[in-house]
Amino acid sequence: MVGLAAGRNHDLLATQVITASPRFASWEGDASSALADALSLGGTKRLDPVEMALACDIPLIGTAGAAGLHPTLAALRAGKPVAIANKEVLVMAGHIVHKVMNANGGALYPVDSEHSAIWQCLWGEETHGIRRILLTASGGAFRDWDRERLAAVTAEQALNHPTWNMGPKITVDSATLMNKGMETIEAMWLFDVPMEKVEVVLHRESVVHSLVEFSDGSVKAQLGVPDMRLPIQLALAYPERMPAPPMPRLDLAAIGSLNFGTPDMERFPCLRLAMEAGRIGGTAPAVMAAADEVAVERFMAGEVGFLDIPAIIESVLEKHAVVADPDLETVLEADRTARELARAVPMGVTA
Amino acid sequence: MVGLAAGRNHDLLATQVITASPRFASWEGDASSALADALSLGGTKRLDPVEMALACDIPLIGTAGAAGLHPTLAALRAGKPVAIANKEVLVMAGHIVHKVMNANGGALYPVDSEHSAIWQCLWGEETHGIRRILLTASGGAFRDWDRERLAAVTAEQALNHPTWNMGPKITVDSATLMNKGMETIEAMWLFDVPMEKVEVVLHRESVVHSLVEFSDGSVKAQLGVPDMRLPIQLALAYPERMPAPPMPRLDLAAIGSLNFGTPDMERFPCLRLAMEAGRIGGTAPAVMAAADEVAVERFMAGEVGFLDIPAIIESVLEKHAVVADPDLETVLEADRTARELARAVPMGVTA
Repeated sequence: MVGLAAGRNHDLLATQVITASPRFASWEGDASSALADALSLGGTKRLDPVEMALACDIPLIGTAGAAGLHPTLAALRAGKPVAIANKEVLVMAGHIVHKVMNANGGALYPVDSEHSAIWQCLWGEETHGIRRILLTASGGAFRDWDRERLAAVTAEQALNHPTWNMGPKITVDSATLMNKGMETIEAMWLFDVPMEKVEVVLHRESVVHSLVEFSDGSVKAQLGVPDMRLPIQLALAYPERMPAPPMPRLDLAAIGSLNFGTPDMERFPCLRLAMEAGRIGGTAPAVMAAADEVAVERFMAGEVGFLDIPAIIESVLEKHAVVADPDLETVLEADRTARELARAVPMGVTA
Repeated sequence: MVGLAAGRNHDLLATQVITASPRFASWEGDASSALADALSLGGTKRLDPVEMALACDIPLIGTAGAAGLHPTLAALRAGKPVAIANKEVLVMAGHIVHKVMNANGGALYPVDSEHSAIWQCLWGEETHGIRRILLTASGGAFRDWDRERLAAVTAEQALNHPTWNMGPKITVDSATLMNKGMETIEAMWLFDVPMEKVEVVLHRESVVHSLVEFSDGSVKAQLGVPDMRLPIQLALAYPERMPAPPMPRLDLAAIGSLNFGTPDMERFPCLRLAMEAGRIGGTAPAVMAAADEVAVERFMAGEVGFLDIPAIIESVLEKHAVVADPDLETVLEADRTARELARAVPMGVTA
């Protein structure tokens, strides 16, 4: 353990500093009194997130949003492998990350359970042998609801995700299938495939974490109990597998049945919008992600409805003139403009 | 295509010689007139099976029974990789095959769909990382039948296998689960694991061809439409994947549901007997396989009942004094004695 980064969660960082005695820590603002006390116990030194990424052998980028971008790029520029749990970095700037990685001999180790599954299926395989990547999706909290019920979904309902315990933004993104849509774009960059080779398959049990179909028709899948410790550990231990964290073993006979279906892009337009943005490329995915962030904020604030989220994103994407192969500044500018546009979409847009 | 071996099926070999113009061919006895005509067209030269195995870069051992033993050992002694579709070679003499392979730098490429699945799951992995091998079993034609109905099964019923179209011996072995039991022993030798790490899971759809659980709890599976051309092609093309043979793609959403369960060793004692024989090792698996061959012959002749098959095997195993680490002669002697014992078990043994 080299360092821990915490953003604004000073009190949790304080506890972790006491437990793990890291050499470095990173946080935003002035240390809380609990954090200051914890730091006074040992020799933990403060670094900013980029310095932290450069101090680690394998930085794990777990911050949500654009905050992960600079540490990721800095580590890749230094030729380091980066364990990446952040979606937005690849959605916003996948083409830039990809170029920096290839130019400097770095690597991306996925930490998402779906991408970790695909990664494991690809060990010992040739990338050119990929015929399809099949991302599994639990379908979100409302997979069986019709449009009428979806229109009336409240923020409280959306935060009640069936399988994973996550932050509010990603939980709403799971319910709209935007999270899955962003994962299709991540898959493009992580595994160097066009969007045409990425599909989403509904799988409510969340046991099959994803699959890869190869050129000869053979399909490989990775399965496991839903536990994020497994992909995190794997990204840090790669190419070794460490002993299992204490957790139940997968018991297929006890599970009995694994079910699969096709996602409904009519009821969950965010999935379609994200895959389209990924296909278009350039600034489109960044604009899509920025519009989604604002739309979800507005939904959480009770300002717009659940089905207004895709409507806002679509409205912003329609107004945006896509720039192909943008540099980072252009991406960030498109992000800012998209947020303004998303805030300006009138309330009750789907009404 | 270097050569084709046909045993006694001269007329099929004649057709194949005309289609494929192999440099070599192998058959038993005097050529039929059709075969003689076909051979007269080109320069196909006759070889015996061992010469044939040595003439190929990758011999594919597809003969059933002990006939595959000498060609397999000859090719491994020459340091060649062997694509192995024959069960009995590894069941009878896995320890000898394993030693010869390791001493001469050869390799075994599995052709069975289950073992091909496990093989694919292990690419890019360390053998010491295997925690469990999970062989899937369709459960055979009578998976839901109770003991009373099983006792009355006829040879005709047993030959009606739900998924694969195979020869009569292996079809009966599929119905008794002996085929799956032999596959557990094959898995031990192919993947260098003790029987304690091999499990069988019922999976009636035959879509998941088998799975591997690793030391960190992660599970990998290989899936596909049931089509033997895929594992055959893979063994011959390894480490490349060739384009798919013309066959439907796996469509999980259309399949809808994959089901799993635990095999019932009470109703299907052959599975238990085979796994026990594998655990004991030495001459036990050869004796078990020989007794099974005779028991199945007697069942097909209407001489004994379906549940007499495991009863005969158990009776023979009880009478046999296991020899540890036997040489080939000792194995073949145990095989002969077991056949005599199996023929001598009185009819209606389970009555």
